[in-house]
Amino acid sequence: MAEKLTHIRIVGAGLIGTSIGLALKGAGVKVSIRDSEARAEALARDLLDDLDDENLSLEQLCIVATPPEVIAHVVAEELSRNPGLRVMDVSSIKTKPLLDISKTSLDAAFFAPTHPMAGREVSGPESARGDLFIGRPWVLTSEGVDPSLLAHVKEVIAICGGALMIRSAADHDRAVAQVSHLPQILSSLLAGSLNRAHEEDLELAGSGLRDTTRLADSNPELWGQILSGNAEALRPLLISLQNDLSAFIAGLDENAVAQEVIASGRRGRARIPGKHGGQSREYFLVAVVIDDKPGQLAAIIESCAQIQVNIEDLQIEHTPGQETGLITLSFAPQDGQKVMSHLQEQGWKVHPSR
Amino acid sequence: MAEKLTHIRIVGAGLIGTSIGLALKGAGVKVSIRDSEARAEALARDLLDDLDDENLSLEQLCIVATPPEVIAHVVAEELSRNPGLRVMDVSSIKTKPLLDISKTSLDAAFFAPTHPMAGREVSGPESARGDLFIGRPWVLTSEGVDPSLLAHVKEVIAICGGALMIRSAADHDRAVAQVSHLPQILSSLLAGSLNRAHEEDLELAGSGLRDTTRLADSNPELWGQILSGNAEALRPLLISLQNDLSAFIAGLDENAVAQEVIASGRRGRARIPGKHGGQSREYFLVAVVIDDKPGQLAAIIESCAQIQVNIEDLQIEHTPGQETGLITLSFAPQDGQKVMSHLQEQGWKVHPSR
Repeated sequence: MAEKLTHIRIVGAGLIGTSIGLALKGAGVKVSIRDSEARAEALARDLLDDLDDENLSLEQLCIVATPPEVIAHVVAEELSRNPGLRVMDVSSIKTKPLLDISKTSLDAAFFAPTHPMAGREVSGPESARGDLFIGRPWVLTSEGVDPSLLAHVKEVIAICGGALMIRSAADHDRAVAQVSHLPQILSSLLAGSLNRAHEEDLELAGSGLRDTTRLADSNPELWGQILSGNAEALRPLLISLQNDLSAFIAGLDENAVAQEVIASGRRGRARIPGKHGGQSREYFLVAVVIDDKPGQLAAIIESCAQIQVNIEDLQIEHTPGQETGLITLSFAPQDGQKVMSHLQEQGWKVHPSR
Repeated sequence: MAEKLTHIRIVGAGLIGTSIGLALKGAGVKVSIRDSEARAEALARDLLDDLDDENLSLEQLCIVATPPEVIAHVVAEELSRNPGLRVMDVSSIKTKPLLDISKTSLDAAFFAPTHPMAGREVSGPESARGDLFIGRPWVLTSEGVDPSLLAHVKEVIAICGGALMIRSAADHDRAVAQVSHLPQILSSLLAGSLNRAHEEDLELAGSGLRDTTRLADSNPELWGQILSGNAEALRPLLISLQNDLSAFIAGLDENAVAQEVIASGRRGRARIPGKHGGQSREYFLVAVVIDDKPGQLAAIIESCAQIQVNIEDLQIEHTPGQETGLITLSFAPQDGQKVMSHLQEQGWKVHPSR
């Protein structure tokens, strides 16, 4: 049996690295985190109470949470710092980093390739959250990995609440090309087409465009590495899609052609399993129609504070040049009705939402 | 001046027709609703307290909320029922229905083409909500429309809370091809590609795939009509996209090519107005690490209120069961440094964020 996890080093204080750190810290594991960027490192260390009492002999595992192209470089650096290094990575592609690592002096048995399927279009430690991985697939390429390292890696995944899935590097890369990289590319191409649009046409944009292009906010540097690093798995998917698009354009005037494209999409979407989409947190949402002016937000929060309920989340929809805005507040389900009644009594225009 | 709205007839008890009905009913307007499908009609009439006391002479306006291909047919039917008919439609395309209407005996001045940009991937009266249109763009093609009909149409839009936008039919159709139809097509093509995927690969699907294919759940029959009915505006957009896709495939192995596709998408997405009708705005974001307990949110907002800056947006990231949370506040750029210094002085753990 491997010893229980007590000390972890994380290199890379981005969204994923810092989120793993938060989950580990929550479970009582001492986390030390470093980043090549000083600002990110400072924020992440604040979040993780990383007090700089480095002790090499205590570190059981180094989690490399950097973009894929620098993994091998980081591993080489870490090796010179700590010759007994044991590593897991968390990057979005698996074949190429494995190849890169094989060129370092790290024993392959001490490198565990993993990938938590929990990226967001936002990045950096400021977007990190310890529950990012709950219920999300977390792929592990376990073949040839030292058993005690494997035990620690599985413990990290379990602490984070990830759903462990064993895949070969090739199977992983083919799967993410389909479920992650292809959506990223189409979202970015769609958003890129907006550069050609008339300014006033974009005023009609609604939630459909916003949702479909949400991924397009992703980091270009990171995704340039991911996509080009997975070109082999992506190419056949892209060519099939190109054929579908050409066929659609050829039949564009025909109702039946368009109808079949939509129907086919509906069938495809129905194939997405529901079980590993992440634990959706059920909130009671309250929509409050407000005057869009300073002070309204503070006033509504003060109203909630009076009855000591915790606002779990908050969204502001306001239209410059219009008098009304909409604030949507999220509460624990048991607080919902209480908040509704209280806000109504205080004269707020409230609506239960969804 | 047109008389204030008191009686409205709606034909088409789908999501849009029923939602408009709910908003009108909420404002005290008597609504009568009909649908060719008995089940939808019964549900909508229940929702709208439509008690069947039809009185033709009281009906001021008929809202046709059917799929675009049947609008002219419905108008012809309604004309034979009520020769004094005045109509607004709410369909997703404008040029083709106008052409169809011109072949009926309805005076063109009594047909007001409109389009509320508030579709959802769900449909039917059971998904209807009276607040569906609040703050959403609602396009009106006002040219040549009778002034008293126009006044009633604007009253409907105002009651629903829509953001009125005047556009010619051609400008509308070009805009929706870009902001609504293109996202629909790409979402459906992406979802359609899942029909070719290995079952076990789909187990890795996360929120990225889910969000990007959300629109793919749309109704094939309705969207077949919309897309083929707007073929002319769609064709150049699709051909440009096809070229982008081909260029991407050709440069797939190159990091720089992939990076530029993502960067271009990011630029395009930044062009989407932040909230409807306005310019997209650049905010100064401040990340504050807080104890995740009631009162912290109110305290931080109170701190901001002390120096009279307006919080433009706010996001909460917290992990249930953990002690630390993160609040990201958005400010006008000129307020950013002032807020940072003030919060720091007050002892908050603040970090500038992107």
